[in-house]
Amino acid sequence: MTEPLRLGIAGLGTVGGGLVRLLDAHGDRLALRTGRRIEIAAVCARDKTKDRGLGHALDGVRWHDDAVALARDAQVDVLVELIGGNGVAKDAVEAALSLGKPVVTANKALLAHDGLALARAAERAGVALNFEAAVAGGIPVVKALREGFAGNRINALFGILNGTSNYILTSMAATGASFESALAEAQALGYAEADPSFDVDGVDAAHKLSLLASLAFAAPVDFSAVYVEGIRRITALDISFAHELGFRIKILGIARATDHGLEVRVHPAMVPEGTALAHVDGVYNGVVIEGDFVDQMVFEGRGAGAGPTASAVMADIVDIALGLKLPLYGVPVDRLGQIAMASIDRRIGACYLRLSVVDRPGVIADIAAILRDEQVSIESLLQRGRAPGEAVPVVIVTHEVEEAAMRRALARMGALATVLEPPTMIRIEEIKRA
Amino acid sequence: MTEPLRLGIAGLGTVGGGLVRLLDAHGDRLALRTGRRIEIAAVCARDKTKDRGLGHALDGVRWHDDAVALARDAQVDVLVELIGGNGVAKDAVEAALSLGKPVVTANKALLAHDGLALARAAERAGVALNFEAAVAGGIPVVKALREGFAGNRINALFGILNGTSNYILTSMAATGASFESALAEAQALGYAEADPSFDVDGVDAAHKLSLLASLAFAAPVDFSAVYVEGIRRITALDISFAHELGFRIKILGIARATDHGLEVRVHPAMVPEGTALAHVDGVYNGVVIEGDFVDQMVFEGRGAGAGPTASAVMADIVDIALGLKLPLYGVPVDRLGQIAMASIDRRIGACYLRLSVVDRPGVIADIAAILRDEQVSIESLLQRGRAPGEAVPVVIVTHEVEEAAMRRALARMGALATVLEPPTMIRIEEIKRA
Repeated sequence: MTEPLRLGIAGLGTVGGGLVRLLDAHGDRLALRTGRRIEIAAVCARDKTKDRGLGHALDGVRWHDDAVALARDAQVDVLVELIGGNGVAKDAVEAALSLGKPVVTANKALLAHDGLALARAAERAGVALNFEAAVAGGIPVVKALREGFAGNRINALFGILNGTSNYILTSMAATGASFESALAEAQALGYAEADPSFDVDGVDAAHKLSLLASLAFAAPVDFSAVYVEGIRRITALDISFAHELGFRIKILGIARATDHGLEVRVHPAMVPEGTALAHVDGVYNGVVIEGDFVDQMVFEGRGAGAGPTASAVMADIVDIALGLKLPLYGVPVDRLGQIAMASIDRRIGACYLRLSVVDRPGVIADIAAILRDEQVSIESLLQRGRAPGEAVPVVIVTHEVEEAAMRRALARMGALATVLEPPTMIRIEEIKRA
Repeated sequence: MTEPLRLGIAGLGTVGGGLVRLLDAHGDRLALRTGRRIEIAAVCARDKTKDRGLGHALDGVRWHDDAVALARDAQVDVLVELIGGNGVAKDAVEAALSLGKPVVTANKALLAHDGLALARAAERAGVALNFEAAVAGGIPVVKALREGFAGNRINALFGILNGTSNYILTSMAATGASFESALAEAQALGYAEADPSFDVDGVDAAHKLSLLASLAFAAPVDFSAVYVEGIRRITALDISFAHELGFRIKILGIARATDHGLEVRVHPAMVPEGTALAHVDGVYNGVVIEGDFVDQMVFEGRGAGAGPTASAVMADIVDIALGLKLPLYGVPVDRLGQIAMASIDRRIGACYLRLSVVDRPGVIADIAAILRDEQVSIESLLQRGRAPGEAVPVVIVTHEVEEAAMRRALARMGALATVLEPPTMIRIEEIKRA
């Protein structure tokens, strides 16, 4: 058996603790599968005295106060960066790479912002910078895109990539609760942060989507170019209409090659209830990948949590132990393509609209005239309730329409005196099978 | 760039043709991802003159009449065996391994029967014998088990592994057709063979399951030890009752670690309609893997066909081009464990029973008494229709029961004069999430 592979683990939070437990439970199994023992040489965490429930798993392991010092520790072969964020985490990753040490990270924010520079640094050093755990938790989607589907041109990718917002939407659908009360419940259960905006405003999903899109299309996708819309405006009423129309509301990350360039967008969407992603509920994540040879593939599993994330981190460590070394985005940085980003204005697809209108003759005619003027074709229209002179909801499902036209129509409808609130628009995504 | 990787492709049927087309379409992409050009040096197929619609993709490629000669061709670096079966395919694989050449195969029958010996030969030769395409077509499930989930103890695995039988069951559910007419339709569409027994009797699924189980549990699972039951006895009536009870009928491959040993079985099962596998319809395959850290993971995609299978074959070739070399079952043959197989008699789970009984007072009491005697607890019982003195169906859902007791009860119920046909029993598999 070869020399052991010695890890330096930066960060002993949920994921770091899970990784320590995994190694403690499965050290022998891993040695059998990789031909090397995987050991923890050193760790770094803010509080050495805290009881993390790790028993004796860290006995004899060296502690560092500083992640950069950990990365530089001569006994550390691989840096496992589980701190998160763009501060000291980045310094530690750079320090490890500059010393020619491979890195495993679960840090999507770091890679979404600095992935290209770090990919270059890893290539210069001739080492791996692996990040399976950064996207969709335990789902081996990075491995699928870099290896399993290497023989495909990827046409599109759809993902439920944020467990917190999916939990909130699932809970709203199950209980009829408002966004605010479902969020409060998720916070009480520890599924949502005190400041939830990273999750519910789609930022976290956009980080992950930009990474997946870069891998799938072998082109750097800048996080700032991703169109992002969160779930705060989703109401229980929309969820109920969605069910009635045969849809579920999910927040999707979508990357798709079109004639206008690459669409990369995160937003709430209605998906038909018969499709796989419609059934990815609660804190689960789901990813659909469409390749020209493999056709449509669906992955579903836990997107967060100590166990699944530690499993993904360990898969990356196993690859390093096996000597597998792939460029971060699957192809070397200087061979990455440049793909123009398509504006969301060019999106073509069906839409769900909900308007709160005064129940009065002629209102529907005004709305229909605006849609006709903007060439928006109506698939179905229903007005619910009857309350002359009062507010009633009108729900419209359109045929395929260009986003720009839809937005013009929305602006004009919103300006009608008989339309009482800004209209709600939720994109419909069919995710059809070939 | 390193030397090209030169393939010898044995077999130019559906999959072989797909592979040639894939390389023709994506040669540049693959070179970018692997750092090597992947080329076809030679092929072997029965009929050189047949038009396979491959254009000029094979111009200048050497033809062999004999797969063994192809394997021995000095210009061939990797043998890609797409012939199938245990005859010349085996000879060619052995010839390649004996010359120290890596092999990629889609041949589940070969590996289910001779996997252990071939794994040994590959290890002696120090080369890879890859088989992603042998199980679940384009779904990267071998890669997931050997690499992605390497840090997990696998507790259980469930799969819809045969597209033909899933197509037939889906079509019976959609149209109410009998097994016989759904089979005839599948044959007319080319989804089922003239002799369908390999698919509908569960043999093909058992081949694949024995491979998956060997990988998941790092122990050789002999195909002949797999309990196998096909779908011929499934009726439209059972499918209709299943829907009424909130289930779908699927033929599942199941491998599960229990206190009595390893359960490895293929049989029709009722799965709750809210679970992922319930929605894997038509020719699609689905696999659920339960690991102790990653929890439950679901994969779904096309299990057969030229494109998806070629995608999986290429993934194996890419691994070879990247220098990745894993033991066939994930761990070296001499380190594989020995796990006792649990008899199907020890299965514990709920069951669906359907009896055709004479509508006469006392019949239900007789049945209930037998179930009580065998300690089978009833969750629900329904008698459909009212036809005094005539045959009516009685459907029973049991609580968890041991298979042996269930069988004793079935034998006794079948012997009742008022029970007109041998009772139908279909196992219920919850596939619960943690």
